[in-house]
Amino acid sequence: MPKLTPYEIIRKKRDGEILSEEELDFLVGQFTSGKIPDYQISSLLMAIFFRGMDDEELLHLTRAMMETGIIVDLSDIPGCKADKHSTGGVGDKISLLLAPLAASCGIKVPMISGRGLGHTGGTVDKLESIPGFRTKLSMSEYKRILKKTGLVMSAQSDYLVPADGKLYALRDVTATIESIPLIASSIMSKKLAEGIDALVLDVKVGSGAFMKNIGDARKLAQKMVYVGKLYGKKVAAYLTDMSQPLGREVGNWNEVVEAIEILRGESDVEDVIELTTKLTAEMISLCTAENYFAAEKRVTKAIKSGAGYEKFCEMVRAQGGDIKVVVDPSKHKKARFVRRVKSSENGYVSAIDTLKIGMAAVKLGAGRLKVDDKVDPVAGISILKKIGERVSSGDAVAIVHVNDEARSKAAIEEIKSAYEISDSVPEKRELILERIG
Amino acid sequence: MPKLTPYEIIRKKRDGEILSEEELDFLVGQFTSGKIPDYQISSLLMAIFFRGMDDEELLHLTRAMMETGIIVDLSDIPGCKADKHSTGGVGDKISLLLAPLAASCGIKVPMISGRGLGHTGGTVDKLESIPGFRTKLSMSEYKRILKKTGLVMSAQSDYLVPADGKLYALRDVTATIESIPLIASSIMSKKLAEGIDALVLDVKVGSGAFMKNIGDARKLAQKMVYVGKLYGKKVAAYLTDMSQPLGREVGNWNEVVEAIEILRGESDVEDVIELTTKLTAEMISLCTAENYFAAEKRVTKAIKSGAGYEKFCEMVRAQGGDIKVVVDPSKHKKARFVRRVKSSENGYVSAIDTLKIGMAAVKLGAGRLKVDDKVDPVAGISILKKIGERVSSGDAVAIVHVNDEARSKAAIEEIKSAYEISDSVPEKRELILERIG
Repeated sequence: MPKLTPYEIIRKKRDGEILSEEELDFLVGQFTSGKIPDYQISSLLMAIFFRGMDDEELLHLTRAMMETGIIVDLSDIPGCKADKHSTGGVGDKISLLLAPLAASCGIKVPMISGRGLGHTGGTVDKLESIPGFRTKLSMSEYKRILKKTGLVMSAQSDYLVPADGKLYALRDVTATIESIPLIASSIMSKKLAEGIDALVLDVKVGSGAFMKNIGDARKLAQKMVYVGKLYGKKVAAYLTDMSQPLGREVGNWNEVVEAIEILRGESDVEDVIELTTKLTAEMISLCTAENYFAAEKRVTKAIKSGAGYEKFCEMVRAQGGDIKVVVDPSKHKKARFVRRVKSSENGYVSAIDTLKIGMAAVKLGAGRLKVDDKVDPVAGISILKKIGERVSSGDAVAIVHVNDEARSKAAIEEIKSAYEISDSVPEKRELILERIG
Repeated sequence: MPKLTPYEIIRKKRDGEILSEEELDFLVGQFTSGKIPDYQISSLLMAIFFRGMDDEELLHLTRAMMETGIIVDLSDIPGCKADKHSTGGVGDKISLLLAPLAASCGIKVPMISGRGLGHTGGTVDKLESIPGFRTKLSMSEYKRILKKTGLVMSAQSDYLVPADGKLYALRDVTATIESIPLIASSIMSKKLAEGIDALVLDVKVGSGAFMKNIGDARKLAQKMVYVGKLYGKKVAAYLTDMSQPLGREVGNWNEVVEAIEILRGESDVEDVIELTTKLTAEMISLCTAENYFAAEKRVTKAIKSGAGYEKFCEMVRAQGGDIKVVVDPSKHKKARFVRRVKSSENGYVSAIDTLKIGMAAVKLGAGRLKVDDKVDPVAGISILKKIGERVSSGDAVAIVHVNDEARSKAAIEEIKSAYEISDSVPEKRELILERIG
């Protein structure tokens, strides 16, 4: 058997040949331990961008990545362990609601989330906007909290899939993020390492998502479901609309408050409630084999009864968060400036360039362009007008919350330019486009 | 105008957009001065492999590369300055004959050549097999020799197109050598920097060439001719056959001897004589606007009269080479072992896998796999049977010359496996396939 060389592996992929399990193991292992230089991997990543990967390759790549770190053993914790993953969008606070709701229905939710990058927010940043909330947990602490409260929400740690951190950093600077097999292996290697039984995937589609068209989103979802099932997990994926921000709030603390209000039954933000209910019910149904519609009723009940809210509070306390600002959000510090973004047109909102809304939030300080940028917990955008809503010239379509007023001007311009106003009422769009599982 | 970033340039090329002159200048300049990391450039090179480049991009890339170094000024040397470049093959010693022949016909030949790499030989290695021959010359020495003898044959130096050395080293380890715009810009940036008026390009096609099919070879030739003409040079390209070694000798000193014998009129190796005559006549004709057939007659005369051989000797003396071994090649040291490669079949040679012959020569020590490998000047292969020739079982098809006998076994096997013997006489193939200019 010929000696494996990075050169020959790059050449094979470049010429459309299939990489073997052994070649992928060699690549991922040697790269993670620093024995293959970045410049060879980045050229391979670009070849993968153009050539793709078949199912076998994807499977081997995912496993090879997973095996560079530890695989969490949750077998001593009784019950079905489940997680949810979103491919990233703007205003996506579903995890903040789903995790406590599912836990209040008896599912164990060991959730490991990411931070925001570029136009997309991250669950960890949102949670950390609660003063004192700790997302960096030791393994024993992580398992203790999960056992006790039924859920734990933590940041990605270095001991889980170190290969992914290194690969992602390289992809981020070499324009190789947007590759379906690379996205699928990055997500699934981390989720499989969590030691869960079930997984709900939310693949976003539209102007605020990485997948701009439903064909790509479907392909990504299918690949991830395929890998998950082959590893014996119960998996379902939803393709959901990200052609406008989810809910009415964008920004870390803003989104936590929106989630709290929904959990307390004080808010009727339709899209967030609908998506939360569907994805939580799916998770329960995957875990318990319970009828989906029965599961949906249990979720609705967990909102109405306040059981989900109680679970949320329990988790905040367990992870060191200040419960006072949860009970009374007005006690949280506020952004120094609030500025209205006014429409100069009359008509109906026909489209929102959601990537621009996300980038405007970054400009206000709510997100980051580089991994080590700091985020401002209270910076954000309140979305007053969503698609289909009537706007008159002079009406505010959004409100920006900002501490550094100098940052608001460019953000306001970006938000303005994101709105498209037309004379006629646009066609209503579906929030949930497809289920794959 | 938005800030140039390597990321955005990679993304544009990846998505099939056209890079601007400014972007290519930025890339090449910043990479050469070490300000853009290798991992971004290697990912861009792979994107170029897949997307190619249009004529404008190729032009800007070539110029940007050329401008990273000095551009030789030969304006103080009277007469037409011309060079020849071959894309590389096995047994290609044409430069050793063409340069002195053209010089003996009044053309100034400032030739800058490369070293062998992989299966292909290099003119510089061949010249250095003459004891004492110096190919590293200072600029003043280079110009003095050119002025005095009408030709100079030197190695590529660092002050000419430093971008190419860096890019080539990276391409070599990232499987991005085989890209037409990258090959064309690499060759033409160096040739344009030489300060020449005319250029003859020999683009090899076949099993021993980088271009395996005539379509790719034609495209490469067209691109190089296009770039050269836009820079005001007289350029012609020939597509020539490399589906068997050129001539009867492969290996550095072996090839010098073959060239000397032809220059002295002592040898009738048809293909080398034909190609030398054609390319030299083309060079004269480009320079003088003389009728091609008249130029061809002058070249044949320069061989017969010994004028080319005299020029060759003059150049060897001027560059410090030992003239005694030129006058009497038997005075050169010899390889310790000579081994015959025997055929076990009867029939006609129908094909020779020339890449294998080149790799066998590397195994004997005549070439190198890595840039800093040493070559053995007397290692090599004598080709006894070429395509179309009759072979009986037990006949030697080739002879290997080697100093380290342990190296001969694998080489002999490789040569054997390169030969294809068939029952019928194969169709005669043309040596010169096409002229583009």
